[in-house]
Amino acid sequence: MDKSSPRQVEIVKYLKSLRDTICKRFEGMEQSGERFQREDWLYAKGSGGGEMSVLRAKTFEKAAVNWSGISGDQFPMKDGQGAFFASGVSLITHMSNPKAPTVHFNIRYIETEESCWFGGGYDLTPMGFEFEEDTKHFHAVAKATLDCHGAELYPKFSQQAKEYFFIKHYNKERGVGGIFFDHFHSGDFEKDFSMWKSVGDSFLDTILPIYEKRIDLPFSEEDRKLQLARRAHYVEFNLLYDRGTKFGFESGGNPKAILCSMPPLAAW
Amino acid sequence: MDKSSPRQVEIVKYLKSLRDTICKRFEGMEQSGERFQREDWLYAKGSGGGEMSVLRAKTFEKAAVNWSGISGDQFPMKDGQGAFFASGVSLITHMSNPKAPTVHFNIRYIETEESCWFGGGYDLTPMGFEFEEDTKHFHAVAKATLDCHGAELYPKFSQQAKEYFFIKHYNKERGVGGIFFDHFHSGDFEKDFSMWKSVGDSFLDTILPIYEKRIDLPFSEEDRKLQLARRAHYVEFNLLYDRGTKFGFESGGNPKAILCSMPPLAAW
Repeated sequence: MDKSSPRQVEIVKYLKSLRDTICKRFEGMEQSGERFQREDWLYAKGSGGGEMSVLRAKTFEKAAVNWSGISGDQFPMKDGQGAFFASGVSLITHMSNPKAPTVHFNIRYIETEESCWFGGGYDLTPMGFEFEEDTKHFHAVAKATLDCHGAELYPKFSQQAKEYFFIKHYNKERGVGGIFFDHFHSGDFEKDFSMWKSVGDSFLDTILPIYEKRIDLPFSEEDRKLQLARRAHYVEFNLLYDRGTKFGFESGGNPKAILCSMPPLAAW
Repeated sequence: MDKSSPRQVEIVKYLKSLRDTICKRFEGMEQSGERFQREDWLYAKGSGGGEMSVLRAKTFEKAAVNWSGISGDQFPMKDGQGAFFASGVSLITHMSNPKAPTVHFNIRYIETEESCWFGGGYDLTPMGFEFEEDTKHFHAVAKATLDCHGAELYPKFSQQAKEYFFIKHYNKERGVGGIFFDHFHSGDFEKDFSMWKSVGDSFLDTILPIYEKRIDLPFSEEDRKLQLARRAHYVEFNLLYDRGTKFGFESGGNPKAILCSMPPLAAW
């Protein structure tokens, strides 16, 4: 896989454009006027690399949006082998206001010698303060988005999110769920690609209306403490269980990019 | 292993007494007058449990000293099988002063159906400020302690610490090393037990003189930031690589006890 295929080029183009749109919209919401800082990195164990965009500011205490596109000789996970290409966008927010939940979003496309598939999803994690209407809104956008591509998708993907974003040692879900899918390949590439892009395109609709309602709510020192304790659970999930983090380290990815999902501050 | 053997009773007695001594000496150094808070837990998947002692105060921003003694039907790690007994003391400090390093200490004794062995060690992790004389002192105590039990031990155990306390994704050691051993069984139980106790008994000598010099040094906001960033590396090591954490979760241990080694505050 020395040269990018037209399909890979198209995937990368979509992902970078989505990344740009998201960063712009987040910047529009950031009250300090601060901007995302971009940092590029090269994939040492193969070709390609990534672009890491991080905003550390007033509204977004930390937001990280990573695009990466790498290829190599040896797929580093058990679910594939041989030469591979992988490209995705991965995003996380850690808001200053404890009433504003953390959101995580990822979409990725993977090709190995034998197969190719899509993965991704988004999920919401309140940091001590759960607003039922936010949870409903988040899931409603996900459902409406997926229903256009098949009525079976939302029930399946939201169940998978429940199972995936689960903190085993506390026997509880990480947050209030969302959608998650992996190894998605129906046999019809264009159809799958279209569903996958819809997930990407709907992400901002899941979260921006929630942030508009929450980022200016009053909060106390106690609220902040609870937020920092909840963020600790987030760290535990990411380092102990998350497949993306594992893939990142196993594939020899840039630790700075892998770990930029970590909260700016967490307390145990 | 329904009933504790005399050997197990002796091990547990030593461990609890060591735990008491350490807590007392730490409390003697704590400038706020705060005391360790003790919390007991029961091992849900077998018999026994643990006692978790935590001090959150002024000098010791957080210190955790855990004793545990559990037994069960199925040893949860790959290096043994069948019924097992495991007892140990595990300790970590996170000091308020960034100039005062974090210290980690653990000793454990494990019996399976086929074998029994000792493990343990201590290692030092400066949080942004490394004092060469502290590193020297720490290793000198370790060496003097082990040399009494065999000249081959310190070189071997300190090398093992270098290898074990290694953060793969940064390609660097977690701190400035110390000693580490696992699966230690020479065939002479009394001899091994004696070496192991010497390690336990020498722990306070490794660290108290260092803390006496460092806990009152002046530091800046920048120093504190560096400390919190270094603590993040500590979190990464513990959740991604540490065998003790893994053993804890795999054996269905109490997550609160397993995670009480985590820093009170860490920043990414």
